[in-house]
Amino acid sequence: MAKASNGLKIVFLGGVGEIGKNMTVFEYDDECVIVDCGLTFPNFEESPGVEAVICDYSYLKNKTKKIKGVLITHGHEDHIGGLPYFLNDFKVPVYGSNIALALLQSKLDECNIKKVDLYEIGDASYLELGKFKVEFIRVTHSIPGSYAICLTTPVGRVLLTGDFKIDQTPIDNNLTDLNRFAEIGRNGLLLLMMDSTNVERNGFSMSEKNVFTSLNTQFELNSDKRIIVATFASNIHRVQQIINVAESHNRKVLFLGRSMIKIAEIAWSLGVLKYKESTIIKLSQMKDVPYDRICIICTGTQGEPNSALKRMSQDDFKNVVLSEKDAVLFSSSAIPGNESSIYKLINDLSRKGVNVIHSSLSEIHVSGHACKEELKLMFNLLKPKFFIPMHGEYRHLMLHKKLATEMGIKESHIFMPEIGNSVEVDKKGIKQRGDVISGEIYLDGKNLINADDTIMNERKILATNGVVVCNAFLYFGSNDKLRTPEIKTLGIIIDEDTLDALTLDIQSYIASRIGDDAESILDGIRRLIIKKFKKNFDKQPLVVVMQADKI
Amino acid sequence: MAKASNGLKIVFLGGVGEIGKNMTVFEYDDECVIVDCGLTFPNFEESPGVEAVICDYSYLKNKTKKIKGVLITHGHEDHIGGLPYFLNDFKVPVYGSNIALALLQSKLDECNIKKVDLYEIGDASYLELGKFKVEFIRVTHSIPGSYAICLTTPVGRVLLTGDFKIDQTPIDNNLTDLNRFAEIGRNGLLLLMMDSTNVERNGFSMSEKNVFTSLNTQFELNSDKRIIVATFASNIHRVQQIINVAESHNRKVLFLGRSMIKIAEIAWSLGVLKYKESTIIKLSQMKDVPYDRICIICTGTQGEPNSALKRMSQDDFKNVVLSEKDAVLFSSSAIPGNESSIYKLINDLSRKGVNVIHSSLSEIHVSGHACKEELKLMFNLLKPKFFIPMHGEYRHLMLHKKLATEMGIKESHIFMPEIGNSVEVDKKGIKQRGDVISGEIYLDGKNLINADDTIMNERKILATNGVVVCNAFLYFGSNDKLRTPEIKTLGIIIDEDTLDALTLDIQSYIASRIGDDAESILDGIRRLIIKKFKKNFDKQPLVVVMQADKI
Repeated sequence: MAKASNGLKIVFLGGVGEIGKNMTVFEYDDECVIVDCGLTFPNFEESPGVEAVICDYSYLKNKTKKIKGVLITHGHEDHIGGLPYFLNDFKVPVYGSNIALALLQSKLDECNIKKVDLYEIGDASYLELGKFKVEFIRVTHSIPGSYAICLTTPVGRVLLTGDFKIDQTPIDNNLTDLNRFAEIGRNGLLLLMMDSTNVERNGFSMSEKNVFTSLNTQFELNSDKRIIVATFASNIHRVQQIINVAESHNRKVLFLGRSMIKIAEIAWSLGVLKYKESTIIKLSQMKDVPYDRICIICTGTQGEPNSALKRMSQDDFKNVVLSEKDAVLFSSSAIPGNESSIYKLINDLSRKGVNVIHSSLSEIHVSGHACKEELKLMFNLLKPKFFIPMHGEYRHLMLHKKLATEMGIKESHIFMPEIGNSVEVDKKGIKQRGDVISGEIYLDGKNLINADDTIMNERKILATNGVVVCNAFLYFGSNDKLRTPEIKTLGIIIDEDTLDALTLDIQSYIASRIGDDAESILDGIRRLIIKKFKKNFDKQPLVVVMQADKI
Repeated sequence: MAKASNGLKIVFLGGVGEIGKNMTVFEYDDECVIVDCGLTFPNFEESPGVEAVICDYSYLKNKTKKIKGVLITHGHEDHIGGLPYFLNDFKVPVYGSNIALALLQSKLDECNIKKVDLYEIGDASYLELGKFKVEFIRVTHSIPGSYAICLTTPVGRVLLTGDFKIDQTPIDNNLTDLNRFAEIGRNGLLLLMMDSTNVERNGFSMSEKNVFTSLNTQFELNSDKRIIVATFASNIHRVQQIINVAESHNRKVLFLGRSMIKIAEIAWSLGVLKYKESTIIKLSQMKDVPYDRICIICTGTQGEPNSALKRMSQDDFKNVVLSEKDAVLFSSSAIPGNESSIYKLINDLSRKGVNVIHSSLSEIHVSGHACKEELKLMFNLLKPKFFIPMHGEYRHLMLHKKLATEMGIKESHIFMPEIGNSVEVDKKGIKQRGDVISGEIYLDGKNLINADDTIMNERKILATNGVVVCNAFLYFGSNDKLRTPEIKTLGIIIDEDTLDALTLDIQSYIASRIGDDAESILDGIRRLIIKKFKKNFDKQPLVVVMQADKI
């Protein structure tokens, strides 16, 4: 980073080739700013046992002084979730909207991380961080306080959209600042870096306001039931609309689920969420309100194991017993990979007699990301010279590249980023530079560890094939007899007869090798066990063999 | 089953409350027929290591002589996949269409199961099996040779639709026999049991023929590339259409993937699949054909680990190297739960420069199941007195029940089935009877085992937390010193220092208990290890403790 250079260097540490853990570094001379620092929730099949994944930011090691700040586009987990870990290692200032900072603060409190400099920014906030002039430009998204970031650098202007859509009728009337985008386009934009999430979808995304009508219809259709609406806690505008519908139907509102309660509290304290105080009730008050006068707003749309809704579906949520007197509305979409858990949850709820309404049945959800026509509008307003598709899996980035060329951007002016890549951009061109250290850091239990394929493979084999532990006697006992080896299995279905036969086989094998080198016998036992399991069960468990009579 | 009864007894062994492993038993007096005997592929998260699941049919044990036959609706895995196991236990005749029997025969050959009586049925085939008069009524579905089954019993007629849609323009012109359904409706139908898969979808399903136009467009758009179309091997009409499009574009066709090659061969030999013999090439001939004159038809739409397409995406398929000179069309939909694997596959293909077209981007797939309007049409044609929704997860069955009541069927005339339920139906009513033994049988490696939650939980814990094995010396050695215990971990990330510290802790613990009962010390060590892992890592591995100096 220290080497002098005439270009702006951009390093991709996360959020490209994936939807999750966004983190991008911008460097000029010996200064840099970082945009976002998120986390991802991995799936069990690929990384069993891992709770979360953050970016490997060891590239920034020893560069604390050069980091002028972390700029947050908005307060979603995939943009701020890595910060408690990052800020533990790097004492640098953080800039973000009131909501994003409030959510971050609550994470920092949980991790007991103190003395972090958080600076609130707002509409059209303007900062000078070293050679970077930073402008926050308002956009609409599925969380309030979302911003595009325009970096004015000595080589020109770079604009990251962050996650955005162009909602022409947002709930809080805070429009995406298209006028400013138009102005930037007129003045000349060097590089655009844009959200690719919905590049596969034609047309425009629906306005958040559209949800109101569908929600209202569902409240009318279920007017005799208690209504439970599950949604993403951070979608405060959605929560606002649910409250509005509930109030208009004269229902009391109860927040359930840890993050729903927390975020509702934060949003209320910031004045972002508005309601009559008499609307909100606590769990203990619910018993005094008739069923058809209650609206519960809760988490758990993805069927997460410990979420409020999942626990209700399992009769494991104190004082909330679901029955045919309930309607559950999923005001959400499935995050790819979660479909099975979600359908299981819906089936379990249906089995209780609950009337379940999900996105296949009613339009009670809209996406927070720009569709193809919105992306095109942005290209036309911003007229960038160079383009880098961001925030998408590889197929999204590829399609976004294709769209960019259709919008008139030269193919040589487009860079397809992968994690660990770096590019240098100036007025003349965009050039790939050497890759940097990068990768995934796993949160495994409470430890942060380097992504480790060996361990993940071991876990997958354990899950698929189980483990056999054998404690073997290699010497004759005091009575000149070879004692029976002990065998224990985990994750393996094996009947006693087969286990007994295996034990005898091992014993005979040892007897045939008495006097040989112990390590070699133990290895032979290991191979014998593997062979037997392959033959009897077509299974390949992990095998641990130890000696029961070490001297 | 032996008890005399005036009603028809129906036992649900599978395929209700789930989409998969269909199996239903119909009994009258001491005779019975079975409809379908399928299997399900479980997901890794719920049943790690399990390859397939079939129905627990132990209810039928010792009743071989009473089983008049197994009736197959069509040749999909979830309808015939359990038969190789079932027919190994029960020597009973099987009735099904040419395709279904050919697919079954190939499974029986693989499992080396001989001397099975297979009887081919065709359009309007009529059998008398004891007191059951069995009629096969043609329906359209995503595999040729699909039939609804009408059972005429002493108490009245029962009609199972099997999997179906009402395709008004099927590829082979073999229409769903609506005329016969109309006739049955006029003559009086006691009970309808209908496919619920697409009850959430409004309108009519699209005709298979619609796919042709979209496929043709994609062949035109990718006229300079080699085109690879991935689809379900059993969807022979789809394969036919792909061949037709390929032939019209003057392309040679290569089948890849074990099941694609096998099913294409079967379908060709039965005359169900038609093409010019010169169209088909073998892998070894591909090098002599220009890229833009090749169409590969292959398996792997779900991202299955060993499928042709997956292996190509990993450069692991001999003689097929993918690049920007290839287009891959997914003529398929995602089976819920497979989304992550499919997207990973699409991303990997995109990364190779392949132009990937999947269902989000083009209408190159249609469903094989009836949508809401088709279901309504069936209710109106068949006018059943009683109704049982089949072939759906609970939420589908529930919606189908709702639809049935909207179509005029009394709620008391509808039965919501769960696996293991039995009902008795006669002209007067439909009544639930006692549950029977039922459940899941896992194919784990090559063994069939009873579904076992304990073992599955063990596997999940192994995958999430790993396993610690400790071999401990409980007695002073010859030099009056306590030797160091051996610790091995699998699936756990642990640094040497922590491991050394743990080893010392265990050693001190043992020293503090020298002379105590060995079992009690071993148990203490186990608890110590659990405590340390919880404290240091917030992980709860399985722990096996053994003694290294047993005397």
